[in-house]
Amino acid sequence: MPEIRQNLATKEWVIIATERAKRPEDFVPPKKTLTEEKPPLIQNCPFCPGNESKTPPEVFSIKNEKGWLVRVIPNKFAALNSEGDKTRKFDGIHRSMSGVGFHEVLIESPLHNVTTAILDNPQVELILKTYKNRIEELYKDERIALVIPFKNHGSSAGTSLEHPHSQIIALPLIPLNVRTRIERAIRYYDDYGECVHCKMIQDEILSKDRIIYDSKYFVAFVPYAASSPFHIWIHPKKHSPAYTNITDEEIKDLAIVLKTILLKLYKGLKDPDFNYVIRTSPKDEGNKEALHWYISVIPRITRTAGFEMGSGMFINTALPEKSAEFLRNI
Amino acid sequence: MPEIRQNLATKEWVIIATERAKRPEDFVPPKKTLTEEKPPLIQNCPFCPGNESKTPPEVFSIKNEKGWLVRVIPNKFAALNSEGDKTRKFDGIHRSMSGVGFHEVLIESPLHNVTTAILDNPQVELILKTYKNRIEELYKDERIALVIPFKNHGSSAGTSLEHPHSQIIALPLIPLNVRTRIERAIRYYDDYGECVHCKMIQDEILSKDRIIYDSKYFVAFVPYAASSPFHIWIHPKKHSPAYTNITDEEIKDLAIVLKTILLKLYKGLKDPDFNYVIRTSPKDEGNKEALHWYISVIPRITRTAGFEMGSGMFINTALPEKSAEFLRNI
Repeated sequence: MPEIRQNLATKEWVIIATERAKRPEDFVPPKKTLTEEKPPLIQNCPFCPGNESKTPPEVFSIKNEKGWLVRVIPNKFAALNSEGDKTRKFDGIHRSMSGVGFHEVLIESPLHNVTTAILDNPQVELILKTYKNRIEELYKDERIALVIPFKNHGSSAGTSLEHPHSQIIALPLIPLNVRTRIERAIRYYDDYGECVHCKMIQDEILSKDRIIYDSKYFVAFVPYAASSPFHIWIHPKKHSPAYTNITDEEIKDLAIVLKTILLKLYKGLKDPDFNYVIRTSPKDEGNKEALHWYISVIPRITRTAGFEMGSGMFINTALPEKSAEFLRNI
Repeated sequence: MPEIRQNLATKEWVIIATERAKRPEDFVPPKKTLTEEKPPLIQNCPFCPGNESKTPPEVFSIKNEKGWLVRVIPNKFAALNSEGDKTRKFDGIHRSMSGVGFHEVLIESPLHNVTTAILDNPQVELILKTYKNRIEELYKDERIALVIPFKNHGSSAGTSLEHPHSQIIALPLIPLNVRTRIERAIRYYDDYGECVHCKMIQDEILSKDRIIYDSKYFVAFVPYAASSPFHIWIHPKKHSPAYTNITDEEIKDLAIVLKTILLKLYKGLKDPDFNYVIRTSPKDEGNKEALHWYISVIPRITRTAGFEMGSGMFINTALPEKSAEFLRNI
């Protein structure tokens, strides 16, 4: 019998299709070119060193004596415009808003043929520090309500550019989906007097069934109601509403955890396409006891179709406990 | 300046990225094999006539003297199990439910190399009649709360099977996303004393900017806050909460509208991969004045990535008015 599970934090239901479930091994593609089999420098790649003039001027970078190590630039094809006022328009039944905001690209390494999984720890720390810097800087702009750092790796994950990079979008509003998640977290806090993510973390650490990696400050697990195979949540174990609270010591630890998780995917599923997103608090959000930041990692090895669009529900063809066990053992 | 638009019914915001916006013509792929260039019968296709024994026994069909014209079978790889009780389990903080329900496949034609766009009208009417039959039949099962008919066309839309088919999933619960849409529709009715979809339809017909096709009983338009290029909503013009209210005369009209819309996509975008879903009322839902059924058609020509996952918001790189104009003129 398949099982329908509810995620405690999001309240979303997921069909765990155990009868059509695949073994974790069945998700491994038969053959794939790994990132590291490509050349380290590509002449016409706008993100490779030497081609800095092909990108808009950088807004942030970390350098050593040889040059930049990470570099942040405005996205040349930005979805939002950094100039202009945040204005609302009400025209009959239509509501709209000027598309002000920021859309940045974080170039994660001078090397073309790497990915977080195969970078050394200090380089991953630089990426994580840069996210912190960008969130802090972008929140200084009074028009910005929410900053979302995320990474698209591979064409199924929505990027055509190979050079390792992530993106940061700073929005002038709180999206409905984020608003309802915040409301649910606050409601849980009202009802139980504790953070719903802290509760989930305690439960996962106690049961061990879905844990992939448990470090000093962080824990990575496949959620009980994971929406897709190998979907992973990485939480700070100590309650913390915003990514910007992270300390240097915690960044060192998170670099190891994130790298380890991505390396397990890289080895176990042969460099799969994936997305990750840092879900952190909106700028002006109070409710510091109720909200908890985390990183959601989503390998793109299955596709959403008409059912998911019509229901908002997902069908997961892998048992979360089996996905976790597979990754734990790599 | 890009624009952020809100959908009146769903309350979701969409970034209309006008500065990176493409012309409608830019979404046309350079080359593609159209469905009709494939053979009409494939020996090892389980959905082709002669291979009926390769599928589970049919649960419904419409036949003429030569054989079946449409055929409904249980999905061999069903996400839900039709046998068993609808039971809830509460285990510590985890909530789950037995995965009872139905997962059916509607084979839309005996011919392998067709698609709704190139079928004749009477055949499309049979498909639409079959949806009505399945919703009515599946709602008779007391365990079922919501039936969702949908179609996946092409691999980007989540199907690997070429033979024209759609699917019907009958769920034992109301998904969170559907529940919140219902709540919003009811709230709108409470506030304004009218159906939010009726209001949107009036507005679209009046403005004409986003209309693609306007028939006696139905109207097809690109929503003001369309979440992706060429996203289309087809509504009955007369208020109606459930697809099962449709009359034979209305089915004749809807067949022409649906076929025309899909033919415009087929010609204009060279047989693009697409999904459609019929959003109809849950079985036990009252609020008949507030809810309005419709068909949502989503061509899969762009990909969702980390930003969409983290925000629940979409970035549409086509102006809805331009998408509508392009399709109107085909």
